[in-house]
Amino acid sequence: MFIRKVKIAGTGIGLPKTKISDREMDHRLGLREGWVRKKSSVVSRYFIEHETASQLGAKAAYAALEAAGLTFKDMDCLVCASGTMEQPIPCTASLIQEAMGEGESGVPSFDINSTCLSFVTGLDVMSYMVDAGRYRRVLLVSTEVASKGLNWKQKESAALFGDGAAAAVIEQAGARESSRILHAAMETYSVGARLSEIRGGGSRLHASEYSEERADDYLFDMQGEAIFRMASKLLPGFLNKILEATGTDIRDFKLVIPHQGSALAMKLLSRKLGISEEQLMFTTPEYGNTIASSIPIGLHEAIRQQRIERGDRVLLLGTSAGLSLGGVVLDY
Amino acid sequence: MFIRKVKIAGTGIGLPKTKISDREMDHRLGLREGWVRKKSSVVSRYFIEHETASQLGAKAAYAALEAAGLTFKDMDCLVCASGTMEQPIPCTASLIQEAMGEGESGVPSFDINSTCLSFVTGLDVMSYMVDAGRYRRVLLVSTEVASKGLNWKQKESAALFGDGAAAAVIEQAGARESSRILHAAMETYSVGARLSEIRGGGSRLHASEYSEERADDYLFDMQGEAIFRMASKLLPGFLNKILEATGTDIRDFKLVIPHQGSALAMKLLSRKLGISEEQLMFTTPEYGNTIASSIPIGLHEAIRQQRIERGDRVLLLGTSAGLSLGGVVLDY
Repeated sequence: MFIRKVKIAGTGIGLPKTKISDREMDHRLGLREGWVRKKSSVVSRYFIEHETASQLGAKAAYAALEAAGLTFKDMDCLVCASGTMEQPIPCTASLIQEAMGEGESGVPSFDINSTCLSFVTGLDVMSYMVDAGRYRRVLLVSTEVASKGLNWKQKESAALFGDGAAAAVIEQAGARESSRILHAAMETYSVGARLSEIRGGGSRLHASEYSEERADDYLFDMQGEAIFRMASKLLPGFLNKILEATGTDIRDFKLVIPHQGSALAMKLLSRKLGISEEQLMFTTPEYGNTIASSIPIGLHEAIRQQRIERGDRVLLLGTSAGLSLGGVVLDY
Repeated sequence: MFIRKVKIAGTGIGLPKTKISDREMDHRLGLREGWVRKKSSVVSRYFIEHETASQLGAKAAYAALEAAGLTFKDMDCLVCASGTMEQPIPCTASLIQEAMGEGESGVPSFDINSTCLSFVTGLDVMSYMVDAGRYRRVLLVSTEVASKGLNWKQKESAALFGDGAAAAVIEQAGARESSRILHAAMETYSVGARLSEIRGGGSRLHASEYSEERADDYLFDMQGEAIFRMASKLLPGFLNKILEATGTDIRDFKLVIPHQGSALAMKLLSRKLGISEEQLMFTTPEYGNTIASSIPIGLHEAIRQQRIERGDRVLLLGTSAGLSLGGVVLDY
């Protein structure tokens, strides 16, 4: 257990203007009415039209600053914790700083990426810098545009994703505050690296080699069942180690905020992990799977809906492409 | 000053098989013999043929482990600190773990990206986790394939870059060891975000929108002179703050290992910053600008050539797309 006296001072979200209903998705996918809702539980998700990832991120960041009662001047660092990037160079954090109109600020801006777990990794890693006093406050932003990389032939996966951003301001907790990060863990098993991929678009298969025949290589390719099997096998042991390290029983958590990987996976896993329905934050119906934004959107909604209050014990938990598992135990 | 009792236990590099001479580059660029050497100072650089970024990274990682007298089993975390990615999903660290044949290890693997400063940022950030004891040892890997993104019409920039990887093992320094990280700083000014870009290949301009007419958008676009002006203006003040924070005079550094942005920039800046020729690590002739690998390649060469010994004070310094400035002061 490595306690860090770090608190989440404020959260915010940034969504595209266009909301797509499950019926619209049934239509786009050429399926009978009701298929998307039944298969994915996603009632609505947001897709960008002309917005960019950095614009959504800036929107979320401003909302988080407002919730924390702070301004950008109070920030010592900006980290973009996302699984998708706006453009290959420069990093997205820099583009978010630009979109916030803070281009002269000098605030250090860089990216942390562990796909769907990026926010969890970013929170874990940056909390050490905050705890040590290097940065008083860090603005953590996840902003994801999933819609550009969907393979509409893989209907189950296409039905699942949405675009959106979420941000959190983290800072040192005061001596009398109960807020803290108690523990965090991450494990990566790259035997599962090929179960969830976009193969094209980087240095291995460059965009300039794009052709209609190879179009699928540039789109998201997920072997959902194999991931589910692997995650089911690994997650119980992973969670047990977290519980043991913190001396926490799963029933002690006020709320578990999981990555919204898929509705089915979440339901089965919550049963396997002994998480009750009241304990489980479930935002899939309203947002779908928004990659790394899923967990901070869940955190934001949990605060907004007053499902957690200061001092409540919360577990952030998820799996990501890699294949990685990640978790953070915090007293909000 | 935030001292971390962290040392660099070992370094290694991983290069593509194919070495390209300056004459070969003159030929490829359709220029008269001698142009590339005169303009860029790059005598040779390496370009991949069939190798991947993760393979180069794995090679560098094994070499760093050997230099440290350690094995992968001793590693608690693997961070890929690179400006280019092998594929959009999963993160490159996961693919390096796979290329090392350590897919069942569970070692947490994720990416940190601040373009050319990724290694500096990765070292800075991860040293806090090592110092706190969260991870005993971290394997930091920069692996860059610049060659796929070069715009051969921008001859000065194309002449400059090379592919290559470098890795470092960092660990807690023993109580009696003099090794430590004394200080680090980063500043990002996104007013310069558009001076060094690859616009296409992310969510804003997706690979599937690729066309011959828009080909340049998917390639590296650098406004060298504007970057140089901006860096010249910002670097002296940035360096002064670092020197003041550590109470170090520039003459106290045994070695300054700068990002090999361009030979001209390095020469002029070293003059402006008062860095003598003996103090300056200059690897541009052998490797070119290898993006984030430049600084750890310089570090590796400095150790190999015995230009630094344990206890020597070293400055890692550079600028990157973003536009960012970064520096780390360490006692090797």
